[in-house]
Amino acid sequence: MRIAELAAASGVSATSIKWYVSEGLLPPGERTGYNQTEYGNDHLTRLRLIRSLVEVGGLSVAAAKDVLAAADDPAHPFGDTLGIAQASLPRPTSPPSTESLARVADVARRQGWVVHDGNPGLAAAAAVLDRYLALGRDDLAAVLPAYARAAEVVAEADLDTVSKKLDAGPATAAQTVVVGTVLGDALLAGLRRMAQESESVRRFGTGSPS
Amino acid sequence: MRIAELAAASGVSATSIKWYVSEGLLPPGERTGYNQTEYGNDHLTRLRLIRSLVEVGGLSVAAAKDVLAAADDPAHPFGDTLGIAQASLPRPTSPPSTESLARVADVARRQGWVVHDGNPGLAAAAAVLDRYLALGRDDLAAVLPAYARAAEVVAEADLDTVSKKLDAGPATAAQTVVVGTVLGDALLAGLRRMAQESESVRRFGTGSPS
Repeated sequence: MRIAELAAASGVSATSIKWYVSEGLLPPGERTGYNQTEYGNDHLTRLRLIRSLVEVGGLSVAAAKDVLAAADDPAHPFGDTLGIAQASLPRPTSPPSTESLARVADVARRQGWVVHDGNPGLAAAAAVLDRYLALGRDDLAAVLPAYARAAEVVAEADLDTVSKKLDAGPATAAQTVVVGTVLGDALLAGLRRMAQESESVRRFGTGSPS
Repeated sequence: MRIAELAAASGVSATSIKWYVSEGLLPPGERTGYNQTEYGNDHLTRLRLIRSLVEVGGLSVAAAKDVLAAADDPAHPFGDTLGIAQASLPRPTSPPSTESLARVADVARRQGWVVHDGNPGLAAAAAVLDRYLALGRDDLAAVLPAYARAAEVVAEADLDTVSKKLDAGPATAAQTVVVGTVLGDALLAGLRRMAQESESVRRFGTGSPS
């Protein structure tokens, strides 16, 4: 198909398609003549994945490129793909404090988790705690144990979907990890707002502007 | 204090401070002479809040402005503040399908939630489902009931922190809602990655690149 057809089928503009090619996220099409390039179904599949990561998952193009490169490499061990998908978090602009890191690590220990020091989630969670402290709102950290219990329920469901796809080959397993990790954050954030409204109505009789 | 001192104390550059003032997120300082402006502790407190929302919470400056305006208004009902803080989600670029909206609403109903149709989380969750379907990965939607259970645990903890601050006045309650909602997503995403690593190690013996 031509680039205009690819744009219509994927919902991604021709300008963005050209940009993704120039940035190395999408392989170039096949030159079939002067100013003519043909794209195939592989391009469409790939564009849908890119669009999911960038538009719905909120990844930067640079982060999406790293994640896709990891998922593309057939020699990449499963644990590495998970590690790279896990890095799809806003990076703290300054390193979190050792106090907050220790506090999050302690919550993980009480939950019985085995987590290495370099886990990107540990730094991200500690960065949030630092912000609570900087705002003088240490009380907000009281949610930690409940959030950890919830995170465990989510992670079990995540690994269940990975387990069910182990026979489908490494490419599918990698896609599961990448898509499930990145878009799963958005799914969880959405459900959390629904539950907040419901819980607010239950306690205070009001939860929404309408 | 002068702008350079405010920048040093807040960790926000003088250029960004001037931008936040021009965008209406931060009140201007007091002119004390030619090319001299004085800032107070209120500015420092406000900057820490802006920095939390933008740098750690990942909000755009426009979204942070809306959220802060809602939290600032003493006449704003609590339910409205929650509603506006809830809108701090990536907006779907196209409306979600009615099928996905119905599917998420059904999960909410089974969970016993009362949620109005315009809840921004409903649209965000449905947009993720649409992406799973577009990628041919309907199997990923199997996580929905587990995610909903986890979201309920999180929302209960969220409303607990709000309840404990009801006596501290509307400004504190609004700050709790805004900070807790926006940064809570990042905290939960971090803990989820820790739990994923731990669960991956438990099942597959590998979970991290190190």
